[in-house]
This record gives sequence, C-alpha cells and structure tokens, in this order.
Amino acid sequence: MKAPTNFIVSPRWIIPVVPRGKLLENHSLVVQSGKISEILPAIDAEQKYQGLPRYELKDHLLIPGLINMHGHAAMTLLRGYADDLPLMQWLQDEIWPAEAKWVDADFVKDGTLLAIAEMLMSGTTSFTDQYFFPESAVEAALETGIRAQIGIPVLEFPSNWAKDAAEYLQKGLDLYDNYRQNSLIKITFAPHAPYTVSDETFKNIVKYNNELELSIQVHLHETEFEVSESVKEHGVRPIQRLHELGVLGPNTLCVHMTQLNDDEIDLLKQTNTTVVHCPSSNMKLASGFTPVKKLLDKEVNLCLGTDSAASNNRLDMLSEIRLASLLAKGSSGDPTCLDAQSSLEAATINAAKALGMENEIGSLEVGKQADMVAISLDNPESTPTYNPLSQLIYATSSSNFTHSWVQGKLLMENRNLTSMQLSGITKRARQWADRIRGASND
Amino acid sequence: MKAPTNFIVSPRWIIPVVPRGKLLENHSLVVQSGKISEILPAIDAEQKYQGLPRYELKDHLLIPGLINMHGHAAMTLLRGYADDLPLMQWLQDEIWPAEAKWVDADFVKDGTLLAIAEMLMSGTTSFTDQYFFPESAVEAALETGIRAQIGIPVLEFPSNWAKDAAEYLQKGLDLYDNYRQNSLIKITFAPHAPYTVSDETFKNIVKYNNELELSIQVHLHETEFEVSESVKEHGVRPIQRLHELGVLGPNTLCVHMTQLNDDEIDLLKQTNTTVVHCPSSNMKLASGFTPVKKLLDKEVNLCLGTDSAASNNRLDMLSEIRLASLLAKGSSGDPTCLDAQSSLEAATINAAKALGMENEIGSLEVGKQADMVAISLDNPESTPTYNPLSQLIYATSSSNFTHSWVQGKLLMENRNLTSMQLSGITKRARQWADRIRGASND
Repeated sequence: MKAPTNFIVSPRWIIPVVPRGKLLENHSLVVQSGKISEILPAIDAEQKYQGLPRYELKDHLLIPGLINMHGHAAMTLLRGYADDLPLMQWLQDEIWPAEAKWVDADFVKDGTLLAIAEMLMSGTTSFTDQYFFPESAVEAALETGIRAQIGIPVLEFPSNWAKDAAEYLQKGLDLYDNYRQNSLIKITFAPHAPYTVSDETFKNIVKYNNELELSIQVHLHETEFEVSESVKEHGVRPIQRLHELGVLGPNTLCVHMTQLNDDEIDLLKQTNTTVVHCPSSNMKLASGFTPVKKLLDKEVNLCLGTDSAASNNRLDMLSEIRLASLLAKGSSGDPTCLDAQSSLEAATINAAKALGMENEIGSLEVGKQADMVAISLDNPESTPTYNPLSQLIYATSSSNFTHSWVQGKLLMENRNLTSMQLSGITKRARQWADRIRGASND
Repeated sequence: MKAPTNFIVSPRWIIPVVPRGKLLENHSLVVQSGKISEILPAIDAEQKYQGLPRYELKDHLLIPGLINMHGHAAMTLLRGYADDLPLMQWLQDEIWPAEAKWVDADFVKDGTLLAIAEMLMSGTTSFTDQYFFPESAVEAALETGIRAQIGIPVLEFPSNWAKDAAEYLQKGLDLYDNYRQNSLIKITFAPHAPYTVSDETFKNIVKYNNELELSIQVHLHETEFEVSESVKEHGVRPIQRLHELGVLGPNTLCVHMTQLNDDEIDLLKQTNTTVVHCPSSNMKLASGFTPVKKLLDKEVNLCLGTDSAASNNRLDMLSEIRLASLLAKGSSGDPTCLDAQSSLEAATINAAKALGMENEIGSLEVGKQADMVAISLDNPESTPTYNPLSQLIYATSSSNFTHSWVQGKLLMENRNLTSMQLSGITKRARQWADRIRGASND
C-alpha cells in the first residue's frame, strides 16, 4: 500500500522548536501536499479531519527532522578501516591511499546509500555533504527521497574525479545546472580547506557564488597545525585570509573551528558566518575543542555535523547533539551551556537558517515542509518522562526513532525504510570491504 | 521453556579481552554449570558437543559482560527531573529535596529494577551501586539475576534510611551478614565523600574493611570546589586526608577524580588504588576532566561508570566507553590515548581487578564465570566490519546487544529480558513520576 500524501500524525508530544520552549501534548499535526497545514488539539483534529489517514503514535515525541551539517557520506565504506592514529598518519598512510585506489562513481553511490540508511534510521532528514563524484551522491539521495545539500568538491590536487581546480569547478557547475530546479537537492560549493585551495580558486568560487547564490562549505581551523602553517606561508591565520578573499558571509559554513580567538569570533558574528561543530570527529582526532560557549555568547549561528564515518565512526545526529551539549558544558565549566533547547536548535532551525531555508525546514510550523521524525519514549532509558526534551537530548538513543517523513513522504515506518532495500545496501558495502581488505592484505 | 545451563554459543567473533588484542573468528564458547569450560573452533565444537543446545549468532560479537563501576541505580526515578543547572543548585534545590520527600524502600526497589532493565539491555552484567535502602537494591538484583556490588552508604547526616553514621554502618553490616555467602552480591563500604564523612567514621570503615576484606567506594575530587574547601577546613587536599586515614589501597575505588596533580597520580599508583571515571556526569555537571592519559601513563587502574540517571541521564556503558575514549583523546591532544582495546579493558577486566574478582569475571577465559553479552553487527551503523573491536567501541550503539548471560544464566534473549516483566517496571516508574511531579506542581 502506498503511503498517503495527506494525513494526520497524532503523537503524545510535539516539540516544534519554533516557538522556543514550546511543548505540545496531545496535539495532531496535519500534512497536506507535503506541507504542514495545521497543528491543533488531537480531539479537534479527530472531528475536523475524519477522512484523513492517521498515524497514532501514543508514546512518541514528534520533532523536526535533524539536519546533519557536515559529512562525507561515501566514507561509510571506510568506517573502522583505521582508528587510534595521529591525524597526519591516519590521512597519509591510511585514508588517502585507500581513496586513491578505490574511490569511483560506484563507491560513492554505494557508500552514500549506506550513509543515508544509517542517517534516516537515526532521525536525520537532511544532510550536507562533500566528496568526490558528487553526482553519485545526488543519485543516491534522489533514489531514497532524503533531502541533501551536496557540495562541489574543489581542490588544487588531482583525484579520481577531476585533475585540477578548474575541472572540479566545471564539473560541479554542470551538476548545479542539472539539479537547480530540484526541491530536495541543493548544490553548494565545497572548497576543501585553506591549505588545499589557492587564493585564485577561492576568488573564482566567491565570484560564482555571488552570481548563483549557492552557499560555501569549507573545513576551517580544524587543527592548531593548520593555523600555524598558514601564518608561516601567508602571514595570517586562515580565517583572516578567507575573509580577505570574500569567503565569509551568511551563506558560508565554516566547519570545525577548534582554534578561535576572540577577534575571530567577533568576525564570524559581523559577517553572519555559520560555524559547523563536529565534536566526535574533533575529539577522536584530538584536533581541539570548538569554543561553543563563546560562540553562543556572541550569538554566532552554531550547527552540528557528524563528519564522516571514517573519523566519527557513526552518523548519529542524536548522539552528536548529546555529545555537543556535554562537551560545551565540560569544556567551558558552565553546566548551563548549550542546554537541551539550544542543542536541538543547533541541529534543526540553526541549520535551516545557515542554508537559507528557514522558511522551508528546521521547525514544525504551518506552511513549512513536512520534514519530521517521531521517536518512541516507551523504553527503559526514556522512563519516566518528566520532560520529553530532556529525555530526547540526554537519555534516549536514536534506535528509538520509528517514523521519518521528508516533504510529507514517509521514508521510515516502525523502523522499516520504505524507499531502500537495506539488505542489498549492506551486502554491497561488505563486498567493498572484502575487496579493500583483500587488497591491503596482499 | 527453561534456558539450558550447559550450552554452546557460536558467534561470528569473540573478543575475550584477555589475552590482550585477541580476536577469534568462527569459534564456539562452551558453558557448563555456569562457567566457561572451553573455547574452540566452531567446527570442532560441532563434533565434540553434539548433544548440547547451541546459540547460533552468525552476525554477532561475543564479549565479557560490561561492568558499570559507579551509580545510584534507584535515581532512574529522577531521570530528567532537573537538568542544565549548576551543581549546587541542582543538588540543593532539586535533587536533595526530592530525595528527602520520596526515597523509601519501595522507591529504591522500583528505581533499581528500572535501572537493571536498562543496564541489561545495554550490555552490562554487573553494577556497583551506592544509595539509601541498599537492602532494596539487593532484592532487585537478586530477583533479576544480575551481578551487583552494593555499597553501604555512610554519611554524617540523617536520611530516610538512617539517622547518623553509626546507624548507617550498623545497618550496612547487618546487610553484609545476610548476603556474605551469595555468589552474585558483594557488599562494599560506600562512605559518601570527604565533605560528608568525618575522620572518625572513615577510621571505623577502614577498621571494619581490614577485618572483613570488603572494599571501599568513595566520591573523591569530583570538583575543584571540593578540593579548595578541604584545604580551607583540613589544611590538605581530600586525597591526602584519606590517605592519612588509611582509605587508599587495592580494594578502594575513588570515583570521579577530575582534579589530580602529578604527586597524587603517583600516590594512586603506589597504593594500587583504582580510579572510576564517569565522563558523562563530569561533563554534564561541568566538574572537570579526569586526566586519563596521565593515569594510564602511570599505569593506575582505570574503570568506568555511568553515575546515576539524574546526572548522565542514561546507564549505557557502551556509550560511556565511547565517550571516555573520545574525551581522553580530545582532552590530552593524543589521538592514540585510551584506544579501543584499552577502553574495553576499562569496562571489563580492570573492573574485575578492582573488585578482587579477576579470577571470576572481566574476560572470557576457561574457568571463569559465564558473564557475557552478544551484540549484532548486522545493521547499517556497524557496516562494513573491518575490525569488530573498532565497530563495538566507536560505531555500534548498545541497542544492538541481543543476548546476556550472568553465571551462565540467560537474562536477555533477542532483546527480551527473561527474568523481568518490563511493562510492569516501566508502569511503576511512571506512577512514581506522576506522584513526584504532581506534588511539585502543588
């Protein structure tokens, strides 16, 4: 049976995220033509919408779908390939050689499908990605119905996808042309990092970005080493260089940002630039702690990302939200920092703002797209429930997400993915691992 | 049907923890009379033990049951009751008044049962606890078949359980007498903390502990405030005072230890004292970071605990292991610190050593108790599997644990608890929350 396009969801609780602090109990949310058309008391909905199919979710909390703002989805195929190593050894001896040998269109398609399965099953309805063969990531996203912001990777070095910055850009702009009308796919620029992209290429990207009004995602200030090398080579810290090149701004996502002084935080605020915080990856690679409290005190827009399964090693946004909240408290010494409400905002409405989509997604409000997920709180770890928001952020694991909708389309029902053949996807991933492992054992 | 007492488990992989670094593939583990009698290639086991019932776990990893070394199980009933507050406000305005009003034998029994359900479902087979009405915690543990180290709470202040230190101790020693022969219950001393227990009471506890050979668990150096107050009042830091009172030693668990100088780390090593690290709780309450790298460099015995659901807010040891590993790397700047193997040891064999039970539990070795858990790696987040240990620690969530045995007794099968009526337990927990919330809304 095909899932209905007009329907009612009647959960025990709704946290719409906007307005701030709101908790609705025993309310229903009505979806028509992919959008939220009304939120009203359940008892009134029963009267008013007798003809509509209804999802009764009596132990569940309904929230906006989580938005993962940084990752390299295809790298699920390298999950656990190498751990517990220093960053440069991990990259140079393990990850880069494996990528050079194996990454192609099929690798990216199969790895991205596996990532999407994992993300959908853990409450994510939209992800921001950057990797080689982005056309394969787009294909995977379209097949599954998830929302995606796919970055055009740009760097000065050759890869299996392109030979130089000009070719990366050209292929990326072709991709943009192909999908500019698609309502679920947003193509963005993804210059890799200050140390892999030249001034000239950054200027080109800024020029195109000003014309096309896409957005820019860039790894920035990930490690102390990156910053000190830039001072040696360019005489300035990377963020200053990018600012002078015109990269910062309201459509720019600066990913990681573990090294920041107070002036740089002011600069982020002045330029309305977004910071994407990836706590698991930064901790696992010992890159440093993003100064979340200082960013929030200055009202810099803060989002969250998992980074890739090669450095996380999971793509579980709920786990990442909890970790971000705990780390913000622990590293600042302030137990009120990044509270439950603020951390959920970072994974929803703040992300929507950074993408220029705050009128489309990021909260459950009438007129917005029905991108939403339901999580059951009927399990030992979520019992008792004094405060559904606290349970969501601090106690419940993402394996309790049961339902997921994107633009009102049902993508998961009672933990079954409706648009994906999970067994085939995991089987292909294991075949990749067998080949990769086999070759490295030769 | 009653679960068999002699049986074979045939998982895809076994990580026995001892010997270090060992990974067995396609081996079977034989249990007879509650103990591990043999570990051998699956193909040989099929021949040799044709008559024995067999658990075929073809996508699973079998490991020793996880050992949670610090908690207050009954406080699950206050999970999410108050969050995002400074420590003293949280304790004085929220937790302590709620405890004074509500904690009794039934509260502790019902709360501990809920905690045990959560712990069994997330891979824990043994927990170390301290709370009021410890006889109710023992009852709950015995009903369910989990292994437990139940602390005798001792402090100078009255509670609903006892009026002064002498009464706490006397009631605790009676409890010890009742259960000294029980193979699953170990009674220990749990003087609350340096700031709530007098010198005289510590001396009494040390005297009894020397006679009875129990062990001591104490909150120590949890916050900078605790340390500076001790310097004001006693002229020394708390660990020095406890050392002078004879509290440190190979049977003593010092819980938290976020504030430690190098001399104090040497003292821990010299006295063979164990540190119990509770990363979630320390981060959530912004207490500080335990210097895990320095402790490991000095070979201090390190274990892990969840602390209570009021400050964590979950009792998920696998999540705690991952967090400990990430935090150790992030806070030390060393991405090789507390690697996957070391962090699993902290939650298994190190805990067994601290409890004086290293010949009984903490690893899968012939002759040891069959305390063990199986986790499925057939799910998107665990795919592909280059390295089962890496998947366990960094990628897989605890909702994939399927089977749990304590002393060879099956306590969970395909995620169904065999010794507990889960719906009744969660229902009673919700009734408690309704009463507590109702009263606080008056």
